[in-house]
Amino acid sequence: MSAAHAAAPRPAEPAPEPDGTSTGVWPTSVRRGDDGALVVGGVDVRDLAVEHGTPAYVLDEADLRGRARAYARAFAAAFAPEAGLAGADVYYAGKAFLSVAVARWVHEEGLRVDTATGGELAVALRAGVPGAHIGLHGNNKSAEEIVAALEHGVGRIVVDSLAEVDVVARLAAERGLRAPVMVRVTTGVHAGGHEFIATAHEDQKFGLSLTSGAARKAVDEILARPDLELVGLHSHIGSQIMDLAGFEVAARAVLGLRAQVAADTGYLMPEIDLGGGYGIAYTGADSTPPTPEEVAAALAGVVRRACAELGTAVPRVSVEPGRSIVGPSALTLYTVGTVKDVQLDDGGRRTYVSVDGGMSDNIRPALYEADYTATIASRTSAAEPVAARVVGKHCESGDIVVRGVALPADVAAGDLLAVPATGAYGRSMASNYNLVPRPPVLAVRDGAVRVLVRRETLEDLLALDQG
Amino acid sequence: MSAAHAAAPRPAEPAPEPDGTSTGVWPTSVRRGDDGALVVGGVDVRDLAVEHGTPAYVLDEADLRGRARAYARAFAAAFAPEAGLAGADVYYAGKAFLSVAVARWVHEEGLRVDTATGGELAVALRAGVPGAHIGLHGNNKSAEEIVAALEHGVGRIVVDSLAEVDVVARLAAERGLRAPVMVRVTTGVHAGGHEFIATAHEDQKFGLSLTSGAARKAVDEILARPDLELVGLHSHIGSQIMDLAGFEVAARAVLGLRAQVAADTGYLMPEIDLGGGYGIAYTGADSTPPTPEEVAAALAGVVRRACAELGTAVPRVSVEPGRSIVGPSALTLYTVGTVKDVQLDDGGRRTYVSVDGGMSDNIRPALYEADYTATIASRTSAAEPVAARVVGKHCESGDIVVRGVALPADVAAGDLLAVPATGAYGRSMASNYNLVPRPPVLAVRDGAVRVLVRRETLEDLLALDQG
Repeated sequence: MSAAHAAAPRPAEPAPEPDGTSTGVWPTSVRRGDDGALVVGGVDVRDLAVEHGTPAYVLDEADLRGRARAYARAFAAAFAPEAGLAGADVYYAGKAFLSVAVARWVHEEGLRVDTATGGELAVALRAGVPGAHIGLHGNNKSAEEIVAALEHGVGRIVVDSLAEVDVVARLAAERGLRAPVMVRVTTGVHAGGHEFIATAHEDQKFGLSLTSGAARKAVDEILARPDLELVGLHSHIGSQIMDLAGFEVAARAVLGLRAQVAADTGYLMPEIDLGGGYGIAYTGADSTPPTPEEVAAALAGVVRRACAELGTAVPRVSVEPGRSIVGPSALTLYTVGTVKDVQLDDGGRRTYVSVDGGMSDNIRPALYEADYTATIASRTSAAEPVAARVVGKHCESGDIVVRGVALPADVAAGDLLAVPATGAYGRSMASNYNLVPRPPVLAVRDGAVRVLVRRETLEDLLALDQG
Repeated sequence: MSAAHAAAPRPAEPAPEPDGTSTGVWPTSVRRGDDGALVVGGVDVRDLAVEHGTPAYVLDEADLRGRARAYARAFAAAFAPEAGLAGADVYYAGKAFLSVAVARWVHEEGLRVDTATGGELAVALRAGVPGAHIGLHGNNKSAEEIVAALEHGVGRIVVDSLAEVDVVARLAAERGLRAPVMVRVTTGVHAGGHEFIATAHEDQKFGLSLTSGAARKAVDEILARPDLELVGLHSHIGSQIMDLAGFEVAARAVLGLRAQVAADTGYLMPEIDLGGGYGIAYTGADSTPPTPEEVAAALAGVVRRACAELGTAVPRVSVEPGRSIVGPSALTLYTVGTVKDVQLDDGGRRTYVSVDGGMSDNIRPALYEADYTATIASRTSAAEPVAARVVGKHCESGDIVVRGVALPADVAAGDLLAVPATGAYGRSMASNYNLVPRPPVLAVRDGAVRVLVRRETLEDLLALDQG
């Protein structure tokens, strides 16, 4: 059974009301209409449900674009030459959610695109993102993925092992190309939530260890290969990070290696990438996440100070936010079905509110014990709040959407329920568990709806079944 | 980050060698060929890899059919009239994995099919399983699902709430039908792994509580509705259960309610369903799972004794195994890519073996901290064993396939790796995380390969993307 099921619930608090801010849990355009129903991107959620069905991911295009633009502007300003720095690039981490339209939108807003597989690369290319504005990650890239990256002129391939140095060099040489590469360095810093830890070694699959010398060895091998161009060093320290202190430790580590390499070889790498992982608020109980301006200012300060201390010229800096751009831009719209009142062993009661989706469209509560919140989207209610748990329709007791939330006691079958902050790792990790087709991604803006990813059908599933 | 990443690894032991038994971790047909490569269903895994690519789920048809047949025979024998009982039906729990061919095969072997959604129902029907041999579950069935079940003459709809009694009755009445229903009873028994617990109340979404009187209320309401036929009571206590003792407690509870209803109303329900959840061995460290004969004998004994004590006639009994039929029948075949040696803080070392799949094709290690094992499938090796972790290619440190296993030190890129016991909740819970297309399900038998579910392509994924 899922660990999520065993976890103690957090106190059941109601969802915060939409407040039009970019640090709250709702897309910025969300408000209650005159009769109490949620309106997102100018579209009444009841109209969305009628026309497109539920469950559905509803993406606020202006919110998404605004978050992307805010990162682009904040990093351009904080890393400007007049600020004593050498510029910055923001790569949208496609693993959070990538569709052709989303790749195009973030690129239009000034971002590049970070991809982790051939599939993500293909979608970015189809969106018209130039290869030079795409990065390719991966701890185990296939030769086909590396070849695709080379042939489309990807701006950087982030090499993740010594063996990969050889593979990329060989595949580039075969094509008469010089491959731009970064080295993924494991600095020993792990961050997530509100704390970070720094250890000498890393028991995980990514990167080349600073401590063991593997990272330096990769650098030296790359410098010795004429088919490879060493763009810089890359560090990624974790996910859902609220406290930026861990980035300082990691940045100093990679800048130190960069300075050491320059001292030893005369080659000063032009760039460093400090990864992503900036947290967002999922519920009203979460602390306020850092803004793009705060992230940019913190990283600019670290780079400026560390390079001054090291006596090296500052590098161009890149970062890779994903969740913090697309996560808060979307909500999931469900329809309530069964409502069940359950008596608990402690004498309390819990209202189980079943919706028409579940762990197939949002695995994060079961996978990470992630907390979400929810509100009745189709109306307001003056009924007393009750401690509720929102669950899905899957044949599994761990199929939980919102572990604990206060909902009005009159919540009933047919109500629309909105769960905010589902834009990242929702559709991208969705499954067909119980042969449930996956929901569509609907973009809303200025009162218009556009289907980004259409609803999957049973026929789509059966098209793979050879009978 | 995934909880799986933080968990302590179990001791790294090598995979047990295939032994041709139905209680081991490998499909029964698996053996090492003369040159050391694994052969499954008479097919060399290297040929599978060349012709169909990796990753791939490889399903041993004869093994699957044998397990299905073993359940059918064991229950027919243990519950025969000459054994003092009233017969039994075995429903294959489609949620574990359902394709058209698998539904047809288990039905050919004498099983019925348990479905949890309209999608599973549609696949069972497409396979030619008669409606009367299909059951429909679900804590939040849609009206469309109930209507489909009614119109196809499904043998039982397992009602899960009081509200659903009304809905099913109304939908049946509208069609001039009488709906056969069971009541899902929560007995307070939870089981999983090697223990069970029994509580007065149940803090989960399924069923109608015995303790609160909700189950009895549902029974009375059903008996009062001419459009409903009360087939019996249903209990499901958990997953991956090795110790059968929990079933006895649950069976006595539902048989007690059945007797009480008979005493009060004169109606003795003809059936009870005792659910599924029988465990399997995933690694050599797991205890030996119960055989179908042991399960059938244990349940038959409980029903016989309890009914004798209660003074009621014995019911027909049904059960719902899924994992224990399809789980051990399949293995996943991967190709090794990056191999990385990582130094641990305790001075030890761990070899990270990256494969060309991961959490997108098997979410269970990350979701449930499930342990698996692995072996080099394309050859044998006399190299010293090293402590290894098999990881996937996804952009996430929790992307672990096998947390700890001893593999030969010469494991290298290009080796085929086989992970056994992936038939259940593998393909059925698979995602497109990182836009990775899902692997095919290949059935092997007598040296022939048949594609049950074809490999997904990037074009399949992009068919949903509206640009």
